[in-house]
Amino acid sequence: MSASTNSTPMNEQVLQDYKLLDAINDRYGGVVVEVTEPLESTLFTSMLRASIARWRQQGKKGVWIKLPIQHANLVDPAVKEGFWYHHAEPNYLMLCYWIPEGTHTLPANASHRVCIGAFVMNEKREVLVVQENRGRFRGTGLWKFPTGVVDEGEDICTAAVREVKEETAVDTKFIEVLAFRQSHKAFFDKSDIFFLCLLEPLSSEIQIQETEIEAAKWMPFKEYASQPFVQKHELLKYSVDICLAKKDGKYSGFSPVPTSSAFSDENNYMYFNTRDLEG
Amino acid sequence: MSASTNSTPMNEQVLQDYKLLDAINDRYGGVVVEVTEPLESTLFTSMLRASIARWRQQGKKGVWIKLPIQHANLVDPAVKEGFWYHHAEPNYLMLCYWIPEGTHTLPANASHRVCIGAFVMNEKREVLVVQENRGRFRGTGLWKFPTGVVDEGEDICTAAVREVKEETAVDTKFIEVLAFRQSHKAFFDKSDIFFLCLLEPLSSEIQIQETEIEAAKWMPFKEYASQPFVQKHELLKYSVDICLAKKDGKYSGFSPVPTSSAFSDENNYMYFNTRDLEG
Repeated sequence: MSASTNSTPMNEQVLQDYKLLDAINDRYGGVVVEVTEPLESTLFTSMLRASIARWRQQGKKGVWIKLPIQHANLVDPAVKEGFWYHHAEPNYLMLCYWIPEGTHTLPANASHRVCIGAFVMNEKREVLVVQENRGRFRGTGLWKFPTGVVDEGEDICTAAVREVKEETAVDTKFIEVLAFRQSHKAFFDKSDIFFLCLLEPLSSEIQIQETEIEAAKWMPFKEYASQPFVQKHELLKYSVDICLAKKDGKYSGFSPVPTSSAFSDENNYMYFNTRDLEG
Repeated sequence: MSASTNSTPMNEQVLQDYKLLDAINDRYGGVVVEVTEPLESTLFTSMLRASIARWRQQGKKGVWIKLPIQHANLVDPAVKEGFWYHHAEPNYLMLCYWIPEGTHTLPANASHRVCIGAFVMNEKREVLVVQENRGRFRGTGLWKFPTGVVDEGEDICTAAVREVKEETAVDTKFIEVLAFRQSHKAFFDKSDIFFLCLLEPLSSEIQIQETEIEAAKWMPFKEYASQPFVQKHELLKYSVDICLAKKDGKYSGFSPVPTSSAFSDENNYMYFNTRDLEG
């Protein structure tokens, strides 16, 4: 029997006549396909149908197709076969499909961006502050803590040290998370968690990152706190109170503790109030 | 002069001959297009080129195109014009483009999923535990805290109360975040933050959510803590220690405090050690 392109259920002979998509098994009873070579869309559709028929026979559940952006011609054919979008990064789109009857149990997409703000104070009670040359505070004259986005796969404590180093060239040691704030609709419908972090300076000389930072300096904490913008916003006012309480030894945040995970072999950081637990 | 479909720079007359894409301005000097009607791909390409030429004249920067999944035929044409992927949800793909010279300043995509675990203990020192009927703990006999995923746009404190209610029908009041753990490669390259939350029970009768939960009960805390799986994993052992210290009045986590934001008109929750700040 020769290969045919209709979409009726395929028998074993027909299945064998089609080239199937290369797939690897995931640990949840599903398969992952990564398209790495250009494919003409009609051929892709035939291969996809034959592959799904095969995976159905094998009792597979979720199907993932990772489509690099250079193969964007295959998005529409995959959607026509019933795939939907799971997530996207600049250079690829992840589509998914659920073979069994009933609702799928595929994991939810990432919903939050994670950011850090770095409170770095020296022994003269001067705080490390910057003025940004782009973004919403450009040209406002506001002196603010160094801030930045935590990359996927990056620890919060690593991101804080990295951002301070990148923006000001100051070396620091991460101490603890003092507070965090969750906000919504940070961009489109996504949410945002901002971690206020305490870092200890290990060096003092400042050299600014010119693409992002207009100016940076060590500023007396009182002067930072008295800026009208800081006084006006509860988030920043609370941050000032927390930082002061911390510096006076009255406040305990969450320190990172490396822990083994129940869910993978990797070590991860757990953040908690270690002073209270030990005390 | 009549409309032409070549891609050379367009003069004012040619621009006027093309229908432009409907777009709304964003607050960062960019535009957002949401495709709501079916469009043939060649026509879309012509409209997109004419629109970009217009936006360039207007000094626009970022361009966003939100493509509902039923218009997946337009993904490939947009990519061919230089768009790349920003993020995707099951029913749409967001593409973006940067008009000015130089590197773009478009916001990063969401990188983290946010989950909660709920520690709910009654006055008899019994803790609310469940057995799941799907996922990795299915059939293991492990009794665990109710857990779940925080939706985008949902407060952590709201999600914790919702998950306990959904899984067990028990009403609770959110008290504080006791600890959190960040882990990586939770799914593909995305990361995960898990917040361990303390909740106070407001009711005791259990009714399970049968799609997800096999069984639920109030279990003596000692019995929960002595499960071999809990003893074996540092994350869970620390959680037990923290929960016990909390119940004995020796531990302070982060409580949610509603705050106005410097960045939007919405109220958001800031979480910090309110006991230390007041004390």
